Amino acid sequence: MKPIPDSADTLIHPGWIIPVIPENKWFIGHSLAIKENRIVAVLPRDEAAGIQAKQTLELPNHALLPGLINAHGHTAMSLLRGYADDQPLVPWLEQHIWPAEANHVSAEFVRDGAELAIAEMIRAGTTTFSDMYFFPDICAQVASDVGMRCQITFPVLDFPTVWAQHADEYIRKGLALRDDVKHNDLITVGFGPHSTYTVSQASLAKVATLAAELDIAVHIHLHETPSEVQEAITRNSERPLNSLHKLGLLGPKTQCVHMTELVDDDIALLAATGAHVIHCPQSNMKLASGGCPVAKLKKAGINVALGTDGAASNNDLNLFGEMQSAAMLAKLLSQDATVITAGEALAMATINGARALGIDEQVGSLETGKLADIIAVDLSQPETLPLYNPLSQLVYATNGSQVSHNWIDGKLVMQDRQFTGIDSGALAARIQHWQQKIGANPKDEDLCQPL
Amino acid sequence: MKPIPDSADTLIHPGWIIPVIPENKWFIGHSLAIKENRIVAVLPRDEAAGIQAKQTLELPNHALLPGLINAHGHTAMSLLRGYADDQPLVPWLEQHIWPAEANHVSAEFVRDGAELAIAEMIRAGTTTFSDMYFFPDICAQVASDVGMRCQITFPVLDFPTVWAQHADEYIRKGLALRDDVKHNDLITVGFGPHSTYTVSQASLAKVATLAAELDIAVHIHLHETPSEVQEAITRNSERPLNSLHKLGLLGPKTQCVHMTELVDDDIALLAATGAHVIHCPQSNMKLASGGCPVAKLKKAGINVALGTDGAASNNDLNLFGEMQSAAMLAKLLSQDATVITAGEALAMATINGARALGIDEQVGSLETGKLADIIAVDLSQPETLPLYNPLSQLVYATNGSQVSHNWIDGKLVMQDRQFTGIDSGALAARIQHWQQKIGANPKDEDLCQPL
Repeated sequence: MKPIPDSADTLIHPGWIIPVIPENKWFIGHSLAIKENRIVAVLPRDEAAGIQAKQTLELPNHALLPGLINAHGHTAMSLLRGYADDQPLVPWLEQHIWPAEANHVSAEFVRDGAELAIAEMIRAGTTTFSDMYFFPDICAQVASDVGMRCQITFPVLDFPTVWAQHADEYIRKGLALRDDVKHNDLITVGFGPHSTYTVSQASLAKVATLAAELDIAVHIHLHETPSEVQEAITRNSERPLNSLHKLGLLGPKTQCVHMTELVDDDIALLAATGAHVIHCPQSNMKLASGGCPVAKLKKAGINVALGTDGAASNNDLNLFGEMQSAAMLAKLLSQDATVITAGEALAMATINGARALGIDEQVGSLETGKLADIIAVDLSQPETLPLYNPLSQLVYATNGSQVSHNWIDGKLVMQDRQFTGIDSGALAARIQHWQQKIGANPKDEDLCQPL
Repeated sequence: MKPIPDSADTLIHPGWIIPVIPENKWFIGHSLAIKENRIVAVLPRDEAAGIQAKQTLELPNHALLPGLINAHGHTAMSLLRGYADDQPLVPWLEQHIWPAEANHVSAEFVRDGAELAIAEMIRAGTTTFSDMYFFPDICAQVASDVGMRCQITFPVLDFPTVWAQHADEYIRKGLALRDDVKHNDLITVGFGPHSTYTVSQASLAKVATLAAELDIAVHIHLHETPSEVQEAITRNSERPLNSLHKLGLLGPKTQCVHMTELVDDDIALLAATGAHVIHCPQSNMKLASGGCPVAKLKKAGINVALGTDGAASNNDLNLFGEMQSAAMLAKLLSQDATVITAGEALAMATINGARALGIDEQVGSLETGKLADIIAVDLSQPETLPLYNPLSQLVYATNGSQVSHNWIDGKLVMQDRQFTGIDSGALAARIQHWQQKIGANPKDEDLCQPL
């Protein structure tokens, strides 16, 4: 039995507490206390009576759960949401997204796109995100200003872009960012080599050396489509995963994003090296990339986290939707309705994300001593009635709009769906400006002719 | 050019009007006028200035679109939402759902479950639903009281249930309901034989005869799983679809629900007979039933509508989610990101649903002369910014919670997310009662032990 604290900043009396650890279970009649940025108690309500709290919240219709962790995305691409839909990955990138990026990406683009993404994520219960995009310093600054936890993975590419000219410059600027934010507890920095088809083996080898020396994360798009794997075999006589392994890039700090194309040897290699898989079910479906065999990965003991991918390919940054899609898609692909239960899907979006990002000792579950990254979800509306099992409601019957409160590092960033640190009106005006600039909206052929 | 009416009850000035016919296009700078229960004009805003309206609504941030049509569900099963998850179809039915139904289904169960389902559907932009459940007269009454449009398909089974004892009694009671509601413009009644594995060929033959004579719809679960088809072949030496065809049950008034197991001959037969397919993507995924080949069906000219199925297997009644899932799943299954575009998904949830239910001359699109079944969707929140294409936002970036207004038959049933005809508090209290009665909630093993 843990000692009961005398005082707290916030004492919450919710209907349910879903700690995630242990998995698939919940507390009723319990309370949770926050002091500074930590959870200092999860305890029966009657025992909480002695805690002197500055603020007390009665949330009898709400479930408290760990904030969701979006383990893969490109925040600034929110400015390209819906810019080009219903296209396969390669033409979508080559004919639409990359040209639009070449024309528009700048520090200001990243500032506004990241703030839009952060606003959307907070509203849907996310408390930590991983980002891979140009001007990672700007995204880090916006997240820090709002108070959102993040892993910033800086891009590494072999070709010039608006942010850097060659692989060495990407790496130099990225590591400089790491130095700049080393005292910011909300931010971790990792390598974000885009993929094995856009980064040379020589550059990947440098990433491997530096990542090992510095002991930091490597986050990479991998085995996203059948053609990616097939072309790599043609080019290198091996699968991309094997190339990474040879380069020393597969280990417990490696985050392999997508992984739809997997043979048994791939799965064995992932398991043996302790690499993590970041599954982005809706992006994979929408781009017709393929399906990640989540049930098999889980059986092999591989940690699988969830990501939304960027809003340009999803088109939302809503992990409630991803949890539901992950569970449903796993059942369909494995022809087994019992795999990836509601509790497992919730774990993927919380503690598994924390494990992938190497922050599971700090966040990912509601346990005394962990950082207070917490969300409250209203389960009293028609969509979630009746309620036999709160995990089922959270994964299969809510859509993110029921998230009422969002605490990150002990600080309330959304209260009753109102932001505490984002000016929605000013943000919308800036996004409107980008909309006008980026898109001829609407094109004439899209409009109905006047009758 | 159509004549401009002098007067209207309601004149709406929205940001966008998505008429659905024509597909994939939208109006900007246009207004829509409602008089009594009909759309009397869709016209440029300046031309609308002369219309004397009792009420005028400025909705500059909203899209107006036809109300969504949920072409398959079991409304009262909302009381079993989340009662048994992560189970395959047959044990889910035999070990969980059917026993719970045997213990609890009654006229009161159907009254409360139907009202809960209707409340949820109205909130997510549905204006017409199709139902198949016991006590169909009760569901019809609740829908009529709230003012929701519906197709009630009365169950036909060969075994006794709380509602009827044998096929003849199901049919007799169902046809009596049809007589009772024949003057109710909101309600149509059709046959709802459950499936070819629960209804004998003799009973299906009676349904065929009567449906042809009365010229009314037949709505049936069909080819939902591989085992359903395989067992039918073992039993009858033919596929269920072929059995229906021989019985004279396949035609333009036939609604085939699920259809995940289809060979080319099946598709040809559907196309030749003009039967409709009701696709329930989330239910099929969650129960691991299989995937309906929507892209192939569309290519063959078959009308495909969307349904949520019941909340016990989905677990929500949200057609925004189904549109997104239908588009994404079709892309994944056909390995082609270009199939089932946003516009096509929206058509599936509107005009195609109307075609399947035989009411497409009345609803399913926003056209002058049609009945005023209309929803307004707020596109100004972070989730739907920026906006390059409103169809993309509606299908890929909204989740139903952005629906602000819902008009059915010209009557506002939800305004700024407040019901006009449902007492939410009283409804929630009645659902709470069922929750206590149906479920031991929570089971001891689900709860965390006190720390």
